[in-house]
Amino acid sequence: MTESIRLLGISNAIVDVLSHVDDEFLDQIGAPPGSMTLIDENRAHEIYDMMGPSTEMSGGSVANTVAGFANLGGRAAYIGRVNDDQLGEIFTHDMRSLGVDVRLKPTAAKSPTARCHVLISKDGQRTMQTYLGACTELSVSDVNEETVGAPAVILLEGYVWDIAEGRALAERAIEIAEMNNSKVALSLSDSFCVERHRDAYLYAVKNGVDIVVADEDEINALLQTESFDETMRALKDYDNLFAMTRSEKGSVIVHGNETVVQEATPVDTIVDTTGAGDAYTAGFLYGWTHGRSLEESAKLGTYCATTVIQQVGGRIERGVLDDYPS
Amino acid sequence: MTESIRLLGISNAIVDVLSHVDDEFLDQIGAPPGSMTLIDENRAHEIYDMMGPSTEMSGGSVANTVAGFANLGGRAAYIGRVNDDQLGEIFTHDMRSLGVDVRLKPTAAKSPTARCHVLISKDGQRTMQTYLGACTELSVSDVNEETVGAPAVILLEGYVWDIAEGRALAERAIEIAEMNNSKVALSLSDSFCVERHRDAYLYAVKNGVDIVVADEDEINALLQTESFDETMRALKDYDNLFAMTRSEKGSVIVHGNETVVQEATPVDTIVDTTGAGDAYTAGFLYGWTHGRSLEESAKLGTYCATTVIQQVGGRIERGVLDDYPS
Repeated sequence: MTESIRLLGISNAIVDVLSHVDDEFLDQIGAPPGSMTLIDENRAHEIYDMMGPSTEMSGGSVANTVAGFANLGGRAAYIGRVNDDQLGEIFTHDMRSLGVDVRLKPTAAKSPTARCHVLISKDGQRTMQTYLGACTELSVSDVNEETVGAPAVILLEGYVWDIAEGRALAERAIEIAEMNNSKVALSLSDSFCVERHRDAYLYAVKNGVDIVVADEDEINALLQTESFDETMRALKDYDNLFAMTRSEKGSVIVHGNETVVQEATPVDTIVDTTGAGDAYTAGFLYGWTHGRSLEESAKLGTYCATTVIQQVGGRIERGVLDDYPS
Repeated sequence: MTESIRLLGISNAIVDVLSHVDDEFLDQIGAPPGSMTLIDENRAHEIYDMMGPSTEMSGGSVANTVAGFANLGGRAAYIGRVNDDQLGEIFTHDMRSLGVDVRLKPTAAKSPTARCHVLISKDGQRTMQTYLGACTELSVSDVNEETVGAPAVILLEGYVWDIAEGRALAERAIEIAEMNNSKVALSLSDSFCVERHRDAYLYAVKNGVDIVVADEDEINALLQTESFDETMRALKDYDNLFAMTRSEKGSVIVHGNETVVQEATPVDTIVDTTGAGDAYTAGFLYGWTHGRSLEESAKLGTYCATTVIQQVGGRIERGVLDDYPS
């Protein structure tokens, strides 16, 4: 069973709490529009009390990628920590219902299951206030030969470095990957996260991470470059595979001497950009782990991202490839 | 404070768990498309395990009406039973955040907060499998002079008669209403519910219920009539106010010798008919409790119903009246 898993995600398991807000709300809580802020439990209650009626759905960046990968038909597994509360049950159900092999059961944790308060402005922009809760209790012992197995790719989330044992458990995952010939991918999460953990990420990129997934801001932050041109020159010092998304400018894959430039697909109406990067990663890794070329994989990633920005919600749904030109 | 409440709802407090299904799914669980079935906790787990990823949001028929009434700017209060679990917290938050005076705190119950598994078919039809959970623990003692107060209207949900002390607590609410000169409205919920409790509803309609809110199937089921024409003749024996919705045929209000026929507003695209009746009730009662005529109240109800069928989700949102011709 374990042998045929193509993608294992290790990340923060989060339920999104989505609500529409006006701009004064963001002012009031002091959140820059579009930002992601980590908050503690007291602040989570404060923010929630101020919010209007909400809708809840499973979220989390790499968890969205894993769900999307499963919906593309790929065999996927997942490691993340939820409490055995109702939100933990919801998160686990949503993953399992897609056929994802959830490796950790919900168990009694000190904190409730994580939630991300997603504040949607009138212009569709999303500002996130995240309470990590039970996620912070993910430990090195959760990442072992049994829970990791030998997937084709292990995908780590940059946000994992925000939790106490994050760096240690990432290094343990890399060790296990090396034993089993799994590849390790790192998704850089967001540029503020890169600012917080740049040295640790650079260390990982030079010591076991094979694939780096990032948007333009994130890769520039990692390499401390001022422009994408400068980034492209800086990448000559690395032999990792870099999959970089650039919104309406499309995406660029760099792997050693090989460079693939993939244009974005123009769309009439963007409904919701949430999860565009996560969907791209799902499509790219699905192609790459199923023997497709870098160019074909980039096309598939673009197709998934284009689909997700034309719907509400961050996860690509089953049947997304039904209209894909084969 | 209590004196200025215009609408108090007493109903089953439910969180909706929404998921898209194919027609085979309904076959598999033996649910007629469009039906509402009450299920126990074991069956709820079975159904949930079979369902795909879901989205959660506060629901419940009369709870939707109360939320809509508050969003129209009306002062509203609510009595319903939730457990002190995460779904109970979500339900209570969503009501409170609209300014609804929630009269019962979430408290430890024997069963978890109720959930309704809403199975959405490809054609947009919704089939509901409802686990009442903590709702069934709503008791006569929860309905007292303090929790009810003296609202302009007390709105009872037909589904309340499905719970053990439902009939008794409805009669208690009617007693308190009579003491305080509140009017009592009864929303008939669905035609199967009317089949289950016809005699009890007829008794209530003749003993204290002032207003009956129903769709065509429900009112025909109550009066055991074969057609709406026959219903209109049968209504001559009643002096209650009847507000009856007829989908694309509009709505009809009958009160003694007065009859108001309100046409439906044609719409280009119906997105989701969920909550159309509940929204109509919110608009109608908002008008009626704010001194509008039956005709104006029916127009307002129609406006709310027309709005809600052009959006996803069963609750009308704040600002719905911004474009309403004054």
